[in-house]
Amino acid sequence: MKNEKSIAQLEVELSELKHKYMAKDISPLAPKNGFPKLPIIKGIRLASVAANIKYADRDDVMLMECAAGSSIAGVFTRSSTRSASVLDCQNKLVNRSDKTAAAIIVNSGNSNAFTGSHGEVSVQNICASISNEMNIPLNSIFSASTGVIGEKLPHEKIINKIEELNSKLSEHSLESAARAIMTTDTFPKGAYSSFSINGSNVNISGFAKGSGMIAPDMATMLVYIMTDVSIKRNILQNILTKLNEKTFNCITVDSDTSTSDSLMVIATGQSKTETIVDEFSDEALKFTEELNSVMLSLAKQVVRDGEGATKFLEVEVRGAVSDISAKTVALAIANSPLIKTAAAGEDPNWGRVVMGVGKSGEPADRDKISIWFGNILVAEQGWVASSYREDLGQNYMKNQELEIIVDLAIGDGSATVWTCDLTHQYIAINADYRS
Amino acid sequence: MKNEKSIAQLEVELSELKHKYMAKDISPLAPKNGFPKLPIIKGIRLASVAANIKYADRDDVMLMECAAGSSIAGVFTRSSTRSASVLDCQNKLVNRSDKTAAAIIVNSGNSNAFTGSHGEVSVQNICASISNEMNIPLNSIFSASTGVIGEKLPHEKIINKIEELNSKLSEHSLESAARAIMTTDTFPKGAYSSFSINGSNVNISGFAKGSGMIAPDMATMLVYIMTDVSIKRNILQNILTKLNEKTFNCITVDSDTSTSDSLMVIATGQSKTETIVDEFSDEALKFTEELNSVMLSLAKQVVRDGEGATKFLEVEVRGAVSDISAKTVALAIANSPLIKTAAAGEDPNWGRVVMGVGKSGEPADRDKISIWFGNILVAEQGWVASSYREDLGQNYMKNQELEIIVDLAIGDGSATVWTCDLTHQYIAINADYRS
Repeated sequence: MKNEKSIAQLEVELSELKHKYMAKDISPLAPKNGFPKLPIIKGIRLASVAANIKYADRDDVMLMECAAGSSIAGVFTRSSTRSASVLDCQNKLVNRSDKTAAAIIVNSGNSNAFTGSHGEVSVQNICASISNEMNIPLNSIFSASTGVIGEKLPHEKIINKIEELNSKLSEHSLESAARAIMTTDTFPKGAYSSFSINGSNVNISGFAKGSGMIAPDMATMLVYIMTDVSIKRNILQNILTKLNEKTFNCITVDSDTSTSDSLMVIATGQSKTETIVDEFSDEALKFTEELNSVMLSLAKQVVRDGEGATKFLEVEVRGAVSDISAKTVALAIANSPLIKTAAAGEDPNWGRVVMGVGKSGEPADRDKISIWFGNILVAEQGWVASSYREDLGQNYMKNQELEIIVDLAIGDGSATVWTCDLTHQYIAINADYRS
Repeated sequence: MKNEKSIAQLEVELSELKHKYMAKDISPLAPKNGFPKLPIIKGIRLASVAANIKYADRDDVMLMECAAGSSIAGVFTRSSTRSASVLDCQNKLVNRSDKTAAAIIVNSGNSNAFTGSHGEVSVQNICASISNEMNIPLNSIFSASTGVIGEKLPHEKIINKIEELNSKLSEHSLESAARAIMTTDTFPKGAYSSFSINGSNVNISGFAKGSGMIAPDMATMLVYIMTDVSIKRNILQNILTKLNEKTFNCITVDSDTSTSDSLMVIATGQSKTETIVDEFSDEALKFTEELNSVMLSLAKQVVRDGEGATKFLEVEVRGAVSDISAKTVALAIANSPLIKTAAAGEDPNWGRVVMGVGKSGEPADRDKISIWFGNILVAEQGWVASSYREDLGQNYMKNQELEIIVDLAIGDGSATVWTCDLTHQYIAINADYRS
């Protein structure tokens, strides 16, 4: 009897330890309702297949066809070691004609980054093969690859699947395309908006992948957003560049910037709206607002799938000397391993937030700083707030969604960034198993 | 029988898991020979006591007396939220006269940082009390505090011990002083050099504390270095500032900069050497070389006691456009959680090193980069080296001391920085227990 009880106890202890320390199958921060039902976008067709690049038994290549007349804009990683695909996309975006159709091919499992001249050969061969199969000019074929860095991409595996991909293209394949580009993601990420401009319906559908190697420098992952709005390419690019700064460039998982980050927006122009030609027209502003909401939702979903994440953190900094200064302070806090581990440990350790402000290098007056956890005033005038009690902070930290607000009270600059906590599961994902 | 065997198996599994995931008592990277036997420095006397500030049953306050005639130089954190002690030391260093004796008081367990006006009151009261007890002018009493941020320092506990400290002062108390200032440190850190200048013996003895919240911006911890050399104060300060850039400012544990970092060097002038008045004299250069070796040893010991560290990493970057650029790239690599977890997992993941170069924002040509792990050429000309085999990398990563060398091959700039890996134990120390 004694032995049986001991076994049960040991098994419970073992199971608790494993639950605490080992990687989870799906992020506890994943949206409760699963992948949203994205509206189809007229002029966009997609397909995905299993090419067995790295993962067995799952789709790992997706192809998107964009009808002739589509405006395409993009933002990409600024990494100096960016991949061959990223360089190729950047060149083509500048030169392509909107009059022809376009295609985007994406594979997961291999990033084709730091693969020397092989990388360029792979991109050229894949794009040429698609150009041939789909009868689309080469300079309108875009590509992206995500996965392991430094391994030669087996591009024949992709080329062998192009005919099949082309034959399977469908308006309805948004979710399967979103799944095909996942790597260490624990859930596919999608967002949409349906609204009207001057009485005409407009739709925006987007999906994203990203989980580790996420830091705010350009798109920091792969994101594809499709809309049927009609808009001039340069206007779309301006709006995208601006929105990117306050959405994807405001998230961080681990401060590490990927070599392959790409965000592309395709506007097919197949809704019944007039073409947007003025960035500041009422129509453009409405579209900008809705595009922003889709981008913000996707950006936050990437954080929610941050490797090992158990807490979602919003860090807001106000009262800085400028918006840029506020963002630097916010990112110093959001990237601090000590603040991220405090969140994981549900420790209301506001002293580490003070440290984060201090290390940012931005102007701050120690004795003017105020700090809130959610609605709880924690510190003011350079010290713990008289109204603050440790149990208030401890209760607050039990929430899954945490808000850290810092008022520097020396100016009007503000910024908000999003991140997740740093847990045993992050270590388990990145150190316990070879990637 | 079956049950007994199961219990044994379960216990083994449980013990392995705990060993892997939980914090260690002492860093596996600690010096094998323990604390070195530091030479006494004529003109320096020390004492330590248990004042029960936070830790029970151990010394947590140390007092150092520096004889009249000592030159004192210092470097401090640049954090904008630095502590009251740091601000006070910075002011006093500029104004004090070398003719009087000086004293340094340090407590562990409470950093007296972000404690508002209380912080200044504590510093003033402690310093005034020492000034009174030891008959030393107030502007030659320096202080430092290390430990939790944001809690009021119970300075009466320290003041009550000053008489006892003063009565216990001894030339021989170097090691107990080094132990008294430890916080999350798992071992005390000491280094020394004994050499001669123009036939006269000179000694340098130093000790340091630091384990977490370590990033390269000023001294990044508490460090006290004593020497009997005779040297002008401004010359000592110039040498210290210069050496600090390539020693303590080149280490990082977690990229988080402390609010209390202080490094002070006290030269008592009680050796038989002539006073050094020229920074570039042979005597000054000899002293600089020896001081550098002591500072580098202490800086590396801080990394060896990095929270949760199991691997010691040296990151050398060559061929950058400048030394500053090289240091930025080296720190981008050394601070990358993905590279630090790869080291922990003994994964020769050179793709993450490429990523680190790319994210640094510094000039680099992807196709010119070469990477070595120790003597093993891993990547060159933008791709994996033809001579590299994965098993070579895997074997190398099993070493406790790892060297990552990156040649950007676009200039003459170089830099070397030191860091440790990021392990489950770092998370255990910072998230599993409240600090």
